[in-house]
Amino acid sequence: MSNTEQPAVARVSERDLYDVTTAVLRAAGLDGAAAEVTARVLVASDVRGIASHGVARLAYYVTMIETGAIDPQATPVVVRESATTAVLDARNGMGHPVGAQAMTLAMDKAAQHDTGIVTVRQSNHYGIAGYYAMLALDRDMIGLSLTNTHPVVAPTGSRRPTYGTNPIAIAVPTAGPVPFVLDMATSAVPRGRLEVAARRRVPLASGWALDAQGRETTSPEEALAGALLPLGGLSITSGYKGYGLATAIEILAAVLPGALYGPLVGPMWAEGSPSNLGQFFMAIKVAAFDDPATFKERVRDLLQRLKASPRADDATEILVAGEKEQRATIAAQAQGVPLDAAVVGDLARIADRYTIALPAGLNGAAH
Amino acid sequence: MSNTEQPAVARVSERDLYDVTTAVLRAAGLDGAAAEVTARVLVASDVRGIASHGVARLAYYVTMIETGAIDPQATPVVVRESATTAVLDARNGMGHPVGAQAMTLAMDKAAQHDTGIVTVRQSNHYGIAGYYAMLALDRDMIGLSLTNTHPVVAPTGSRRPTYGTNPIAIAVPTAGPVPFVLDMATSAVPRGRLEVAARRRVPLASGWALDAQGRETTSPEEALAGALLPLGGLSITSGYKGYGLATAIEILAAVLPGALYGPLVGPMWAEGSPSNLGQFFMAIKVAAFDDPATFKERVRDLLQRLKASPRADDATEILVAGEKEQRATIAAQAQGVPLDAAVVGDLARIADRYTIALPAGLNGAAH
Repeated sequence: MSNTEQPAVARVSERDLYDVTTAVLRAAGLDGAAAEVTARVLVASDVRGIASHGVARLAYYVTMIETGAIDPQATPVVVRESATTAVLDARNGMGHPVGAQAMTLAMDKAAQHDTGIVTVRQSNHYGIAGYYAMLALDRDMIGLSLTNTHPVVAPTGSRRPTYGTNPIAIAVPTAGPVPFVLDMATSAVPRGRLEVAARRRVPLASGWALDAQGRETTSPEEALAGALLPLGGLSITSGYKGYGLATAIEILAAVLPGALYGPLVGPMWAEGSPSNLGQFFMAIKVAAFDDPATFKERVRDLLQRLKASPRADDATEILVAGEKEQRATIAAQAQGVPLDAAVVGDLARIADRYTIALPAGLNGAAH
Repeated sequence: MSNTEQPAVARVSERDLYDVTTAVLRAAGLDGAAAEVTARVLVASDVRGIASHGVARLAYYVTMIETGAIDPQATPVVVRESATTAVLDARNGMGHPVGAQAMTLAMDKAAQHDTGIVTVRQSNHYGIAGYYAMLALDRDMIGLSLTNTHPVVAPTGSRRPTYGTNPIAIAVPTAGPVPFVLDMATSAVPRGRLEVAARRRVPLASGWALDAQGRETTSPEEALAGALLPLGGLSITSGYKGYGLATAIEILAAVLPGALYGPLVGPMWAEGSPSNLGQFFMAIKVAAFDDPATFKERVRDLLQRLKASPRADDATEILVAGEKEQRATIAAQAQGVPLDAAVVGDLARIADRYTIALPAGLNGAAH
């Protein structure tokens, strides 16, 4: 899942990275609690090895706040609520704090009524979808988190980016050492993959993207002027399934709460107006269906059986969703969180502007 | 979605097809109400153009019943229930009646409590997943239907079929003429597609299947001895996403209710023992989130905007999920339900055994 182009040039402790990220967000105008939860989401992304969605995005958030495109002081409002559901209006605040609030509300409802669904409108980018789904794990719940995003994917048969990478995240507690955490964009690949290929001057794989005329292309430059393909690629390999799945997410995460949807969503870096993205969070209490210990043991057994399936000749092992990220987490906690030079550079510049001290391990690692 | 190999040789009215299917199921041992709902699901599949899951499967169900692998007389039991959730044990009965019962129960719970989730264990094949999700449309609810199936797909990195085509269906009411109905297997293609290619002696597309060593193959014979790939194909085109999605469905539909899962599920034609498949049904009441008319108008608008996206040079139009099936429905209702010769032949043989009269339009169309 990582889009890291360069090998990491620096390693920093999770705590130090969290502290500097929190300080930057507070300096940018977030309240203490909002800064803390946002930093927690961003650092969790880097810790899990998903560098594209971690502190690498801090420059984006700061720019959006400084240009007035995101209101750092917004307080979400509950606009509709029942025992099992709620709709929040994020009032164009940061997506991360309202995401954690909405998922927590969904879990509180599920704790009392077995299921909980909370949607959010007037929201912004909320980082990795998996963070929110994973909040359910400690409560013996299954967590689901969906969001729409800025248009970069073409519907099957189209050549124009019309909807976003619309990720789906599902987290399931297990008795084993690695919880099941699926956190996937419904595009074939993220747009960052095209940018990396363009910089490295290497061709794309077939099935990733279209050129501006809607023809499949392996040229990164042509693809960047064209559109991403949905999961499944072209129609012959069932790309319409990825497109259909993304549409379902657009409906649940954006249409249902009353956010902007599809091509009505502006480009990611539109500084003039609120993004008005939407999110959908669901919690399911396992105990409503079975004894959680029994369920978790069966999940462990299923995942083990998938991993134990006979390997293809060219494969070294079979993974389950969340396993790679779990390994990255263990490594990051033992050796420090890896950051590449560009990210350290951005972080150094932002910290400098706000006169915030960089963690010792990062000084001199920027470029 | 259709796997029809031959052009249809016969057309029969929906009513006649329903009547003969109901009569066959009653003769095979189903009670009146169970036969009726099962026939409704099978005929709906043919009407929607999904011939692979329609009355073409009648021979399978009859064989399973006659060999004792399915109990036609089973009455599902509610084994656990709360205001918003329930677990049904299908007692190894047909999958269709318990599916309709479970979805109806989920909707009744959602009518009262905004959300409802009902899972089923000790179940069997239930036909098209979309049928159950679509039951929600008339009640201004969003419907979700999931099932696990017999192993035919290899996890990413494996060469062995270890889990099923695990479909997901989501139906959303709209103000437009075509409700959004996503009904998709999470494999790249159905296994029937390989069988058709083998009979026609044409190669497969890349990204569909593996040979017995786990290498990608375009040979139908090698693929039939190998495994289907998940949606997304090989790892380079993100096949691990389709695999992850299918695993999530295996967990929700089979592990959660306590059905068999993954490689523990036997082959489809195992006549000796119950399949013990599982299903997951969810209903979400739109009115808990917004005025249904307003929501349905926004859904219509989103779907229209997707369809209006600029076309790729080689595309004639852009469809949304459910649109092709809606067209097939209109054609079937005007001209009769299309059936190919092999299906008519099977139906004639089964009807003959039970001394049931074939509809007039089907006599002489078999081969």
